Amino acid sequence: MARRLRLGMVGGGEGGFFGTAHRAAARLTDRFELVAGAFSSDASKAARSAEALLVAPERSYGDFRAMAEAEARRDDGIDVVSVVLPNHLHHAAARAFLENGIHVVCDKPVTTTLADARDLGDLASRAGLLFAVTYTNAGYGIVRDAREIVASGRLGEIRVVKVDFSQGWLSSPVERDGNKQAEWRTDPARSGAGCLADIGTHAFHLAEYVSGLQCRSLLAVVDTLVPGRRVDDNADLLLRFDNGARGGIWVSQVATGQSGGPVLRIFGTRGGLQWKGDDPNRLLVSELDGRTQIVERAGPQSRNPGRLPPGHPEGFVEALSRIYDDVADRLMHRHDAAPVRSPQAPMPDIADGIRGLMMVEAALRSGGDWIDL
Amino acid sequence: MARRLRLGMVGGGEGGFFGTAHRAAARLTDRFELVAGAFSSDASKAARSAEALLVAPERSYGDFRAMAEAEARRDDGIDVVSVVLPNHLHHAAARAFLENGIHVVCDKPVTTTLADARDLGDLASRAGLLFAVTYTNAGYGIVRDAREIVASGRLGEIRVVKVDFSQGWLSSPVERDGNKQAEWRTDPARSGAGCLADIGTHAFHLAEYVSGLQCRSLLAVVDTLVPGRRVDDNADLLLRFDNGARGGIWVSQVATGQSGGPVLRIFGTRGGLQWKGDDPNRLLVSELDGRTQIVERAGPQSRNPGRLPPGHPEGFVEALSRIYDDVADRLMHRHDAAPVRSPQAPMPDIADGIRGLMMVEAALRSGGDWIDL
Amino acid sequence: MARRLRLGMVGGGEGGFFGTAHRAAARLTDRFELVAGAFSSDASKAARSAEALLVAPERSYGDFRAMAEAEARRDDGIDVVSVVLPNHLHHAAARAFLENGIHVVCDKPVTTTLADARDLGDLASRAGLLFAVTYTNAGYGIVRDAREIVASGRLGEIRVVKVDFSQGWLSSPVERDGNKQAEWRTDPARSGAGCLADIGTHAFHLAEYVSGLQCRSLLAVVDTLVPGRRVDDNADLLLRFDNGARGGIWVSQVATGQSGGPVLRIFGTRGGLQWKGDDPNRLLVSELDGRTQIVERAGPQSRNPGRLPPGHPEGFVEALSRIYDDVADRLMHRHDAAPVRSPQAPMPDIADGIRGLMMVEAALRSGGDWIDL
Amino acid sequence: MARRLRLGMVGGGEGGFFGTAHRAAARLTDRFELVAGAFSSDASKAARSAEALLVAPERSYGDFRAMAEAEARRDDGIDVVSVVLPNHLHHAAARAFLENGIHVVCDKPVTTTLADARDLGDLASRAGLLFAVTYTNAGYGIVRDAREIVASGRLGEIRVVKVDFSQGWLSSPVERDGNKQAEWRTDPARSGAGCLADIGTHAFHLAEYVSGLQCRSLLAVVDTLVPGRRVDDNADLLLRFDNGARGGIWVSQVATGQSGGPVLRIFGTRGGLQWKGDDPNRLLVSELDGRTQIVERAGPQSRNPGRLPPGHPEGFVEALSRIYDDVADRLMHRHDAAPVRSPQAPMPDIADGIRGLMMVEAALRSGGDWIDL
Repeated sequence: MARRLRLGMVGGGEGGFFGTAHRAAARLTDRFELVAGAFSSDASKAARSAEALLVAPERSYGDFRAMAEAEARRDDGIDVVSVVLPNHLHHAAARAFLENGIHVVCDKPVTTTLADARDLGDLASRAGLLFAVTYTNAGYGIVRDAREIVASGRLGEIRVVKVDFSQGWLSSPVERDGNKQAEWRTDPARSGAGCLADIGTHAFHLAEYVSGLQCRSLLAVVDTLVPGRRVDDNADLLLRFDNGARGGIWVSQVATGQSGGPVLRIFGTRGGLQWKGDDPNRLLVSELDGRTQIVERAGPQSRNPGRLPPGHPEGFVEALSRIYDDVADRLMHRHDAAPVRSPQAPMPDIADGIRGLMMVEAALRSGGDWIDL
Repeated sequence: MARRLRLGMVGGGEGGFFGTAHRAAARLTDRFELVAGAFSSDASKAARSAEALLVAPERSYGDFRAMAEAEARRDDGIDVVSVVLPNHLHHAAARAFLENGIHVVCDKPVTTTLADARDLGDLASRAGLLFAVTYTNAGYGIVRDAREIVASGRLGEIRVVKVDFSQGWLSSPVERDGNKQAEWRTDPARSGAGCLADIGTHAFHLAEYVSGLQCRSLLAVVDTLVPGRRVDDNADLLLRFDNGARGGIWVSQVATGQSGGPVLRIFGTRGGLQWKGDDPNRLLVSELDGRTQIVERAGPQSRNPGRLPPGHPEGFVEALSRIYDDVADRLMHRHDAAPVRSPQAPMPDIADGIRGLMMVEAALRSGGDWIDL
Repeated sequence: MARRLRLGMVGGGEGGFFGTAHRAAARLTDRFELVAGAFSSDASKAARSAEALLVAPERSYGDFRAMAEAEARRDDGIDVVSVVLPNHLHHAAARAFLENGIHVVCDKPVTTTLADARDLGDLASRAGLLFAVTYTNAGYGIVRDAREIVASGRLGEIRVVKVDFSQGWLSSPVERDGNKQAEWRTDPARSGAGCLADIGTHAFHLAEYVSGLQCRSLLAVVDTLVPGRRVDDNADLLLRFDNGARGGIWVSQVATGQSGGPVLRIFGTRGGLQWKGDDPNRLLVSELDGRTQIVERAGPQSRNPGRLPPGHPEGFVEALSRIYDDVADRLMHRHDAAPVRSPQAPMPDIADGIRGLMMVEAALRSGGDWIDL
Repeated sequence: MARRLRLGMVGGGEGGFFGTAHRAAARLTDRFELVAGAFSSDASKAARSAEALLVAPERSYGDFRAMAEAEARRDDGIDVVSVVLPNHLHHAAARAFLENGIHVVCDKPVTTTLADARDLGDLASRAGLLFAVTYTNAGYGIVRDAREIVASGRLGEIRVVKVDFSQGWLSSPVERDGNKQAEWRTDPARSGAGCLADIGTHAFHLAEYVSGLQCRSLLAVVDTLVPGRRVDDNADLLLRFDNGARGGIWVSQVATGQSGGPVLRIFGTRGGLQWKGDDPNRLLVSELDGRTQIVERAGPQSRNPGRLPPGHPEGFVEALSRIYDDVADRLMHRHDAAPVRSPQAPMPDIADGIRGLMMVEAALRSGGDWIDL
């Protein structure tokens, strides 16, 4: 490779942790160089962030539209932008870059409405631009191995897919106590939905990504358990998949004391598997007779080993960096860069982003009834 | 104590593992002596079992009715009988003993229909007889500690209660391959229901027993995933409790490769707890801020330590023996022996048995709609 | 079987937990009946214990010698006695019963000196009497499976054997605060040695029992870390086995906060295994290439499944009961009842007891030098 | 900060995984820019590596001496060099850079002899240059929290420190089958020693770093268990610390099937802690009475939380990056850049490197006798 891809970022100024994670992930690949940004709508904060990140002052922009247009005009303009804004701004920001011919990496949920997500999908497709969505769990090497194990038929026909994702950080109404993360994530105008949008989309993607199945319909019971909260904070979803498999998702942000990441379990006619986000380098794979193997990242037969041998655990940033590597792989070979359309593909993309919103909207509409996706 | 309680057993002849477990549990307490039985409907098998168990030939009966009547007439007749038959025989057998003034310990599900369960409850109540139901998990010392932790208010007001109980031993149609356990458990005439009856009742009891809450309504999606099977083998239940808490139960016997016992999680406004049936001597208890403690059986502050100090794990038989100890405690003090009516009581009883059948019938009837219990 | 074996007990009166465990274990097998005892040197305590245990007053003895002689004279005298006294009394008590033709089950360490242990071995051998030593870990089904896995050659030639056994209950000088267990276990006159005798013998037996190897020499560094304590409370042993394998044992009773049982690891040229006493129903077995399997008690291929299917955990009492079953198996078939002489045998016996004392004496003598066993 | 530090690298060409890890760690901090390297002694390989890493051809050097001199002459010469060569080349390479006034980050073991390590320490000290040694475990946030927990006195006076570090990748003589890593690591001329140098130095550093104690003397039994191997592959060390505490280290590279990183346990008069390298985001902290808390990275009270909230696991590269951050912190504030002299300091440095070699040489010399360090 002759050069690093030129990366821009929208959002991710001082204080937000997800911009930090994205930049770290991009750097980890060594295939991106952060050269431009609209890091904050607060001008002085934007400037400070740019300086701290060694972005040239003339490429630190006041808003994403100006940035998209200016970068598009430069010979050395950015190849790709990372959108790490609050959810309600994803659509407009991503749109601005797509309209200017710039590839997009966008945090999940990709938008706050399904219509917006579809709009981005259409636009990316028409423009022939890549649109990655950072469902980070799909970046763990062992999760990709899990996906391949299912695809190989080792578990037989899949019958049951379950994901639990429970956190406790919103067990109290911390959004009223100055917690910035809580503030926007519980504001329906900015977040779209509560735990469904924030972690439900992760859980749903993980279920489809690893199982290789598509959910056809769902029944949801969605609750707000902290009085006065304006979004859902606990939800149960029952799922039916295209092959007839059953499934369930439980997501909660009022699971007091929990902080452990998603737990995925898949059961087929011949075997089962389990993966836990707080122990992300291992997979349990069981046979019909109960024999269970601990499958380790980078162990024998691993097809997604990552940088380091077993015994050197991969963390969250490395998972995210694998998605940035997916992006770089595709942009290095433009014939692959067309949007990938199915949840079966290694790189989570706008198609997966759209499915996330299909789930959120269906769940919010369900009220305990079955809804087709 | 001047003597051991005289125990009879119905069922539990050669080959069945649950009779073995019950006898072991009763012996472990050293407060029961097995003196009579109707171990099998097959006369020669019954005789062989009696001989092996050192039960006198004249107290080895051909059927439970004969046994109940004969034992009631003896001066040294049994005090209490353990019913470890297939589910469809529980009602008639338990009835026969209650009618003859004999206390009953009965395996779960206590009957195959709610009407039958209520009938037993009425009869036990009128007769002033004790009726224990062996929800074994409720016998683990640490599960009782968990119950007291919730009752103490340490977790605050409970908001969410979840139980998963997944097994894989019915992932194939083993009932057609001569597996006796599978045969009767998948025969609706003998089992009443499938996984709902067999392990769903455990899960439901555990949820109510530890939380101290009562489920008011449920929505269930109940499936048979092995083609040709005549009972449910996978079910998802969503629950609403009397205090407004939400809950969920997932039970499956097609969770290929699994054999781990129930997993219970309870979350309140101030804390959460988790217990796993395959690691039954430990409890995780979390605070609002994420601090998590490993609470060990017989550790500091344990109120249900059991026979041995920490570091000497309790197993399943010891849990079951704690329920036999409950029985002995009550029968030694007859004023306590009246049926206990609520799931809050330490000894699981016919009231809990009735609730199990309420759940099973509601779940089978739900078809994805909310049903009041 | 026509009758239960008649069991006597020496020690195990009110308050001691090990008598409780032994009685529970014997009952669990359903092959023993407790009919006689010298439960305490305190006459009124002995009488109360006998009454509570439903032992006839005339078979409640004031001392073990009187008991051994009286029982030997009875037609219905005990077949076997369990010795659960403090260590320093094991030798005299066991001797009294052997001299009177009564089989012995004795707690570990079998004596306080190697000479005494050998004396018992000689006596049992000459008298043709069975002498079981309750190294309880050797009673877990999965530990026996582990032993067979090693014996099968699946791990190849064994190179390294490690056991850690750490407890924290003696981290403070609780022997001076009225803790009865601590009092006698830290009194050299009654215990023989400290953690070496109490848990070191367990660790050493486990190493030899599962590996099938014999330790040829050891180097030990033995410490007393609580000031003023009169016995060792922390010890490191390096081991050399007969096949050239290396090993190590760390035992400590000042491992503050620990209560988890022994941890055993064995590595050979082709595989390795790990077992943890606080998770006693599972074994990890690894291959040369790092593949690791969770081997579960009673799972496929298990040869020591126990009473119940997987998912019904075995605890400590069940492990101990398997040794009582070993005793009953042998006494039911007298041609097998001769003392078994090697650590390879399933039932831990006086030969294993002798080896335990060889280890203790060698360790105390080592002072950091290699000592042959 | 006005600019990134200019980083050079010696070693780390195609195929070696440790250069990859170091570059990733440095990038992760966003405080270094790789601008020069002598990536391989094979000129075409060096050139290919430089190109792949976007290092300008004129700053891709044929050997470290040429690089050190050339870079020292440049206005934009490197600030610091990472030495990721095989062990036997560390001394000469590090010396070349120190002599040219360039700060050094060096992999462990810092040299192959204690004399060489001391020579580097003297030189760095005289030159006032920073010399970091990448004991990576010391970079995990939770390990630093552990160190602070011990320092706070929460565990009381430390009595016992244990580290196990076992791997299985050298269980077979893979060095004869073309495994490059195995080849040089088992060649005494290139590695200095076997598992003692490779992972023993990690274990020893971890023991001293977290406990805050210094080892005063050790007794070691060092073995080569794979026939024909030229270095040690299994070693047991017993330790005595300056405060009288006891300790032990077991390191093995023939622990067949293992790949899990170090396990550290520390016990004091008031509490204990445990950390496992394969679960690096959690710490178990126990009290005297057995209460045990799971302390999570970035949880309440964490002082070394890292980039992301709990639930987003840190991996090995992030641990290594924390050491690169230590370097950047010091170089940004030159008054702190003097070599830090004690194992108590957060950044592992040449003083720690020297202690590692003291341990290796003492262990190799011990032959089962106590050796003062």
